[in-house]
Amino acid sequence: MPSIDVCFSPTLLPLYALEGKIAVAVDVLRATSSMVTALANGVEHIAPVSELEACWAFKEQGYLVAAERDGIKADGFDLGNSPFHYLEEDVKGKRLAITTTNGTQAIRLSRSADEVIVGAMVNVGAVAEYLKKAGKDVVVVCAGWKGVFNLEDTLFAGALAERLQDSFELNHDATLAAYHLYQTAKADLLGFLSKSSHVQRLERLHILPDIEFCLEEDKYDVVPVLQGDFLVKAE
Amino acid sequence: MPSIDVCFSPTLLPLYALEGKIAVAVDVLRATSSMVTALANGVEHIAPVSELEACWAFKEQGYLVAAERDGIKADGFDLGNSPFHYLEEDVKGKRLAITTTNGTQAIRLSRSADEVIVGAMVNVGAVAEYLKKAGKDVVVVCAGWKGVFNLEDTLFAGALAERLQDSFELNHDATLAAYHLYQTAKADLLGFLSKSSHVQRLERLHILPDIEFCLEEDKYDVVPVLQGDFLVKAE
Repeated sequence: MPSIDVCFSPTLLPLYALEGKIAVAVDVLRATSSMVTALANGVEHIAPVSELEACWAFKEQGYLVAAERDGIKADGFDLGNSPFHYLEEDVKGKRLAITTTNGTQAIRLSRSADEVIVGAMVNVGAVAEYLKKAGKDVVVVCAGWKGVFNLEDTLFAGALAERLQDSFELNHDATLAAYHLYQTAKADLLGFLSKSSHVQRLERLHILPDIEFCLEEDKYDVVPVLQGDFLVKAE
Repeated sequence: MPSIDVCFSPTLLPLYALEGKIAVAVDVLRATSSMVTALANGVEHIAPVSELEACWAFKEQGYLVAAERDGIKADGFDLGNSPFHYLEEDVKGKRLAITTTNGTQAIRLSRSADEVIVGAMVNVGAVAEYLKKAGKDVVVVCAGWKGVFNLEDTLFAGALAERLQDSFELNHDATLAAYHLYQTAKADLLGFLSKSSHVQRLERLHILPDIEFCLEEDKYDVVPVLQGDFLVKAE
């Protein structure tokens, strides 16, 4: 039976062997939620980029450019990190380059895996189905917050573990922790997260609607998969 | 109000500022449980050492030397990592040098804190009282397993957070995770841990009695504190 493991932050990723496995990069608040939303709303492909300058350079090629640092849209960029930016009709058919504080790093650092896909609460069911079909070992790569553990990405890992429990081994300590935290939290994810300093920080930015959007499970039946340098919809 | 944060493994420790804080180093299975047991049973002081050779060198000075690697007592050393080794009448009054796979590293790496103390389930209540009196910010430094997260050290952090919740802020994500996991697990810590690959690995070494010993809360009213290079009983 394949196994599912969870890496709580990119800092720990060098301790995980990704070869032969599928990496699921996740940054629930809000990078990967926005990426899933963008592809679900007709964005053609997404270039996840680490640096602001590299992201900006895509503008010349006709890309929409999106950038977030410390929770806020970076100056001059077309879009930020809110999933609501990717619901508009005018993203349809566009190509998107995006850089965020944590999420795009998690994707980049996962590249030694056989395959990198992108997960969020909004597509957790689609990710689970994709992984069941693939039948390979899985590592959930949490973006965390500036290198350390965060709760919301862990809850995604727990939600995914719950959906995979009949066909995957759940015996890694981090997976068990994520699974049990999700059991505690799932009846009221927002209430559970409301004591967290990270969510309190985001609430001070007045993005409660974003948070509620990002915590809704199974809004989209889309799995972004990394092909070369671009995220595209898996078929 | 001071806060309690949790660092899930030494790998993450460079991301935590320990200056001005008290670090609580923990390796429930079994290094810090054994250290607490040793001091409670009359060991004069303990030298926590990273390397086997450095540990062995203490033998010439009349120390008991203890060493564990991958769960097993290292060849030639007097003692291993089982708390039962430190219950014997013949440890009383002795000085002890010890090196373990994970626990002694957590202590060494915590040295930038104002103070380093050693925690385990067997002394969690004493540690909580010590921290309440000190009133400083706290970071629990989990030894983890070879650099990654483990459940048992996290459960210690959760038990400690529960006991400190009236006088410390519990708003860090890692602390909230530990607190909630402990709520789920506390009625049956051994049952909760029995699915973990680390505990299964230890069970294969036939040390279930060790595990049961290490999960018993408040067995000892002793707080080991690092003074220079040695752990001694706090007064």
